[in-house]
Amino acid sequence: MQVISRVAELTELLDTFRRSGRRIGVVPTMGALHEGHLSLVDRAAELTDLVVATIFVNPTQFAPTEDLATYPRTFAEDCTMLEKRRVDIVFCPQDTEIYPPGFSTFVEPPEVARSWEGRSRPTHFRGVATVVLKLLNMTRADVGVFGQKDFQQATVIRRMMFDLNHPCEIVVAPIVREADGLAMSSRNRYLSPEERIKAAGIRRSLLKARRAITTTASITGTEVTKIIRDELLISQIGEIDYAVAVDPDTLEPQTKIQLPVVLLVAARVGSTRLIDNEWIKADA
Amino acid sequence: MQVISRVAELTELLDTFRRSGRRIGVVPTMGALHEGHLSLVDRAAELTDLVVATIFVNPTQFAPTEDLATYPRTFAEDCTMLEKRRVDIVFCPQDTEIYPPGFSTFVEPPEVARSWEGRSRPTHFRGVATVVLKLLNMTRADVGVFGQKDFQQATVIRRMMFDLNHPCEIVVAPIVREADGLAMSSRNRYLSPEERIKAAGIRRSLLKARRAITTTASITGTEVTKIIRDELLISQIGEIDYAVAVDPDTLEPQTKIQLPVVLLVAARVGSTRLIDNEWIKADA
Repeated sequence: MQVISRVAELTELLDTFRRSGRRIGVVPTMGALHEGHLSLVDRAAELTDLVVATIFVNPTQFAPTEDLATYPRTFAEDCTMLEKRRVDIVFCPQDTEIYPPGFSTFVEPPEVARSWEGRSRPTHFRGVATVVLKLLNMTRADVGVFGQKDFQQATVIRRMMFDLNHPCEIVVAPIVREADGLAMSSRNRYLSPEERIKAAGIRRSLLKARRAITTTASITGTEVTKIIRDELLISQIGEIDYAVAVDPDTLEPQTKIQLPVVLLVAARVGSTRLIDNEWIKADA
Repeated sequence: MQVISRVAELTELLDTFRRSGRRIGVVPTMGALHEGHLSLVDRAAELTDLVVATIFVNPTQFAPTEDLATYPRTFAEDCTMLEKRRVDIVFCPQDTEIYPPGFSTFVEPPEVARSWEGRSRPTHFRGVATVVLKLLNMTRADVGVFGQKDFQQATVIRRMMFDLNHPCEIVVAPIVREADGLAMSSRNRYLSPEERIKAAGIRRSLLKARRAITTTASITGTEVTKIIRDELLISQIGEIDYAVAVDPDTLEPQTKIQLPVVLLVAARVGSTRLIDNEWIKADA
């Protein structure tokens, strides 16, 4: 496993590799890796001949009020974890490699970026879309693998790639969960033991709503929201940012639930904001 | 020469070609072709193995007040002209191929897009940058050729490509002029015979400023602007949008002229807005 921090070095190495006709897979991460990230790396290894994991805490996707400074940085542990999987290159650039002096071109993300996370974090997806486009361009990846955990992010990226006619294929891999169902997240380490127990209620609320949808002949979006909110309140999760049933492509709320549907939740447990989702496909 | 109007057909054809290891060159145009465009096509043919000329009057780069509806559309003549050069593919998509339903991702262009043309046409470069990125992505071109005539456009595109780490090489080809020096432009056909004579004054004003710069030990930006404006007034061109000496990379005005420098002019002759420029390189 090679560790590379310069764009020029990465590009040169990958150019040589690409000319031999082999396929490149990229997994963009912000480090603080957990089994969720590693599952993305494994998926990339299944689909391509060379796997690049990028580790870059992207400043443009954090608002000034957010946790950029304190975001967990665990580079040595990250490398140890990646070393055990089939990762060929770890790309860990400095901020100035990604945003050199005079940098000023951004992606104005698609409309699906405006709702939900976009409302709570108005410049977040502009930063995400821009850095993802840059990473996929500099690697000229054949495949980029993203986690379903950040469902809206994956939707924004898929729509961006389609709108910009980008040749890289986007693969969305399933959520990896702790034993009690909590979706793995780098921010879970912020939770106190007590908060950690409460946080498992998010998953329970989504499963309850899923059961209601798949076993009821007809159910409304408002009813689904109520099921999720009630279950969150039972788990003493009161600060609910949103709890909605939406169309998987447009992310617009469904008035009357029709499959496929995605249930999206964002809530604060203590001071930690957590998100999770449940994707109920057409054949559920 | 093949004429293709569907993105899927273009992509498939170029994928086959690319796999044989040959290089693809793209010349994006809005049609209404003249020798200026053809020189770009010739340059692409020198540099690559397969030349794609695109003809697409891009609605997103026109403001509602501008000449989108009346922009000259001369498709049959364009094809006749291209047929005589080494062009392999003419790509002429419908609006809905480029902007399908739900399309909503744009490029927020770099800072160099804000001055000059960007001030007169605030959303122009957003549309240009977006469509150029799309065309270069869908063709996966190795080289894109653009005209120096639209100096700021070329600068915006070069900076966008750099900022987004895009692998396509951007080549800027020299201005082609009429016998009297008027820069070739699709909009020249709007000029009356009388206006056509006046319009040649733009080139004279730039050459006079160039002489002043290359023969004077020290000259200020203000002095250069005055030379251009005075000469334009002599040619009865009164509606001058801007006449400036700027740094070729940042497009910021030079207070004291230092090579390299670019002289940029935009002026209205009758109701037709014309632009021209003179690039004085470091070794002039």
